[in-house]
Amino acid sequence: MHMIDIITKKKLGGELNEQEIEAFVDAAAHNTAPDYQLAALLMAIRLNGMTPEETTRLTLAMTHSGDVADLSAIPGVKVDKHSTGGVGDTATLVVAPLVAACGVPVAKMSGRGLGHTGGTLDKLESISGMRVDLEEERFIRQVQEIGIAVIGQTGSLAPADKTLYALRDVTSTVDSLPLIASSIMSKKLASGADAIVLDVKTGSGAIMHTLEGSIELAQAMVRIGALAHKPVTAVVTGMEQPLGTHVGNALEVKDAIDVLRGRTKGALLEVSLLLGSHMLMLANRAATQEEARALLTEALESGRGLEKLRQMIAAQGGDPRVCDDVGLLPQPALRRTVRVGHGGYVAEMDTTALGLAAQAMGAGRMKKTDVIDPSVGFVLPVRIGDRVGPEDTLCELYARSEADAESAEQAIRAAIRFSDTPVERPPLWYAVVTKDGMIRN
Amino acid sequence: MHMIDIITKKKLGGELNEQEIEAFVDAAAHNTAPDYQLAALLMAIRLNGMTPEETTRLTLAMTHSGDVADLSAIPGVKVDKHSTGGVGDTATLVVAPLVAACGVPVAKMSGRGLGHTGGTLDKLESISGMRVDLEEERFIRQVQEIGIAVIGQTGSLAPADKTLYALRDVTSTVDSLPLIASSIMSKKLASGADAIVLDVKTGSGAIMHTLEGSIELAQAMVRIGALAHKPVTAVVTGMEQPLGTHVGNALEVKDAIDVLRGRTKGALLEVSLLLGSHMLMLANRAATQEEARALLTEALESGRGLEKLRQMIAAQGGDPRVCDDVGLLPQPALRRTVRVGHGGYVAEMDTTALGLAAQAMGAGRMKKTDVIDPSVGFVLPVRIGDRVGPEDTLCELYARSEADAESAEQAIRAAIRFSDTPVERPPLWYAVVTKDGMIRN
Repeated sequence: MHMIDIITKKKLGGELNEQEIEAFVDAAAHNTAPDYQLAALLMAIRLNGMTPEETTRLTLAMTHSGDVADLSAIPGVKVDKHSTGGVGDTATLVVAPLVAACGVPVAKMSGRGLGHTGGTLDKLESISGMRVDLEEERFIRQVQEIGIAVIGQTGSLAPADKTLYALRDVTSTVDSLPLIASSIMSKKLASGADAIVLDVKTGSGAIMHTLEGSIELAQAMVRIGALAHKPVTAVVTGMEQPLGTHVGNALEVKDAIDVLRGRTKGALLEVSLLLGSHMLMLANRAATQEEARALLTEALESGRGLEKLRQMIAAQGGDPRVCDDVGLLPQPALRRTVRVGHGGYVAEMDTTALGLAAQAMGAGRMKKTDVIDPSVGFVLPVRIGDRVGPEDTLCELYARSEADAESAEQAIRAAIRFSDTPVERPPLWYAVVTKDGMIRN
Repeated sequence: MHMIDIITKKKLGGELNEQEIEAFVDAAAHNTAPDYQLAALLMAIRLNGMTPEETTRLTLAMTHSGDVADLSAIPGVKVDKHSTGGVGDTATLVVAPLVAACGVPVAKMSGRGLGHTGGTLDKLESISGMRVDLEEERFIRQVQEIGIAVIGQTGSLAPADKTLYALRDVTSTVDSLPLIASSIMSKKLASGADAIVLDVKTGSGAIMHTLEGSIELAQAMVRIGALAHKPVTAVVTGMEQPLGTHVGNALEVKDAIDVLRGRTKGALLEVSLLLGSHMLMLANRAATQEEARALLTEALESGRGLEKLRQMIAAQGGDPRVCDDVGLLPQPALRRTVRVGHGGYVAEMDTTALGLAAQAMGAGRMKKTDVIDPSVGFVLPVRIGDRVGPEDTLCELYARSEADAESAEQAIRAAIRFSDTPVERPPLWYAVVTKDGMIRN
C-alpha cells in the first residue's frame, strides 16, 4: 500500500477502504510517510470529502493508533462531555460537578486552549496548586472515591490525530467535516467513556459558522458513535456570542463558581443544565429531560454541585477555598471599565475576534511554548438583543498593561455591532441529535 | 503574505493575484516554505484549477525564479521544440538536424528520461564520448559555427519548477493542466528561444490521455506564449502507440539515424516533418507547410540532415562514425525475437506500460541515482491496425539477462490487445493550435 496510490484515489474522488485508511493512519501515527504526502491527502480529503463509512473507518483507525484508556474499574456508566470549542465556554466546570453530585461518575480528560478558544486544563491551572497531570491509576482512584476528576490526557491517546491535527493547522485543512469529526471522536473513544454528550457550537465563534454545517458535524459524530457502539448525543448550541459573560482563565473559573453558588443565571447555566440533563439520561440516571433537570437543579440549589467542585480541587492539590472566595484567584495588574459610549441594541458579535482579543491579552497561546497569564481577560455583560445606553458597561478589562487594555478595547469594540432597531435574542440551542433522529428548537 | 492565506484562498476556489503567485513561487525557489504547505497548495490547485491569467502569472513567475538564457549572440530566429513526453519519441534527433540543415539555428536544451518516457540527453549519451553538459558560451559558439547544439540545461533555469516538479511527482499532483503548462512553458521561456513548437502527445502513453485534455493543454501553452510575446505553435500528436518502432536509448538513436539515412519511413518521419515544418514557418524560413515540407524533404534526401547530426556529434565529443555504422552503438548482452503466436489485428496498446517495460529493462531510471543501460530496450514493428499472423515478429528484445527478457516479454504481451476484426489506424496528428486558432485533422 503506497501513500501515492491512496492520495491518487482520494484526488479522483474515490472512497478509501479499510486497508487504505489503516495505511494512512499508521503512517501518521508512526511518521513513516513524509509530511508533504499527508498534507496532499488532507487537502484532497478537504476538497473531495469522505463518505460516512470512510469517516467512521478513519475515526476507528485513529482511536486504535495508540493507547485506549480502560475505565472499567469505575462502577457505573461513565459519560464524557466534549465541546467543539467556544469563547467563554466554561460549561465543563459547571456541568461536571453537577452531574457528579447526581451520582454519575465523571472521569474526564480535557484539553488546552487552542487559537481563539479556551481550554479547561488552562482554566483549572489558574487555581493555586491545582494539578491536571494525574497518572491513570490515581485518576481512576479519585473518581472511585469522590466521583469526579478532570485531567489532561493520560498515555498516548490517538497519536495519529496529534500528527494530523498539527499538520491541518498549517495547511488550511482544519475546516473539513470528516477531519473534525474523526479528530474529536477518536480522542473521545480512546479516552474510555461509555457514552458521550457533544456540545457542537455554531455561529461566529465556532469551528462551523453555519447551522447546517454544525448539524452535519453533529450527525456525523453521532453516526460514528453508533457504529462504534457508544451512545452519543450531540447538542447544537449557539456561539454567536461568548457563552458565559467571563472570558479568560481565572475569570471563567470565577464564572463557573458564581453559577454553582447560585449567584449567576443566564446562558452558561442554561446550556450546562441542557448538556447535564443529556448526560444523566445517557447514564440512565434520569428517564426524561424534566427529571434530569430537576435532579441537576436540586444539586445546584443544595450546594452539592459546588461541594463536588471543592472536593475535586482539593483532591487534585488545588486550593479549595476559591469556591468560597473567588478573590483568591490570580488578579490582574490593571482593571478598566469600558462604557458603551452610545445607545442602541447589541446586534452582532464576531466571537472569534473576541476570543483572539483575550488570547492577545495573554489568556491564550500564540505559539505552543507561550505561557498563559491566568489573570487576564474580560467580562462582557452585554448580550445580543440587549438595549444599552452610553453609560452602560461594554466590558471590564483585566489586563497586564495599559497598552494591552488599549488594544483589547479596540478589538472588542470592533467585534461588536450595534443597531438602532430592536434585535432578536438568538436561541441558546438549535438542535439535539441522537442516533434516533434530530429535534430542532 | 503568508502561505497559509494563499492555500486558503485556493482551497476556497479563489484566483491568486500576482503578489500571491510571486510569494508561492519565491517560497518554492528558495525553499522558504515547508514542503507540506507547498504540497497542500499543489493539491488545491490540482482540484480547484487555475484561470488562464493565473496560469500565465505562475509561468512567468517561475520563468524569472532563476537564470534566463541569452541566445541573442546567435543570429536568426531560434526556434525550440518540446515534446510533452512519449515512448519511442526520438523526433528531436530527426527534426533538429533537418531544421538546422535548412539554415535555421537550433540551440536546444533537452531533458532526461522520466518515468515511462525517454529523454534526449540519455539517448545522445549512448553515443561514445558524447557530451551534453556544455557551458553556455561553448554552446552558443557551437550553434554559431555549425548551426546546431543539443545539450542539458545551463545555469539554474526555473529553480521553482525543480522544487514543485519533484513534489508533484510524490503527491499525485502531476496531472494538473495549469501545473503541466506552467512547468513546461517556464523552462522553455527561460531557455531563451524566440519561438517554440510544442508536440503535445495524446493517448495511452501521454501525460494527457484524452484528446480534449491534450487540446486544452495545447491551448493553455499557446495562450501563455502569446501573453509572454513568444510565438508558440502546438501540434497535438498521437501517443496511442510508440512513435518510432524503437524503444530504448541506443535503439532510438539508431531509429533516428535510419530515418535520416532514408532507410525508415513511417510515423517518426512523418511527425518529424510536421513539427519541422512548423519550426521553419515560425523561423520565417518558409511561408507555407508545403514549402517547409519541401525544404525538409530536400535536406533529408540530399543527406544534409544526417551530415548536420554528424557535425553535432563530432562537435560535442561523440563518435560521428555511428551515423554510418549504427553497429558502433552499445550492444546488449542478449537479443531475442518474440513471435505474435496467434493471428489478428493489433487493436490497442497500453503505451505507458510499454515505456515502463523498457524502464524495467534498464532503459530508464526507477530512482534518480539509477544508471541507465544504453543498450537495452526493444523494437516493436507492429502498429495499431496491422494484421499479423502467428509467425510475425511481435518484438525484438535487447536485454541484459534472460530474466529481464522474460519479464519484458510478459509486460509487452500484456500491453497489446488484438482483435479478430479490422481496426482503423489512428491518425498521426489531431490538431494544430496557434494563437490564431485551431486546425483539426
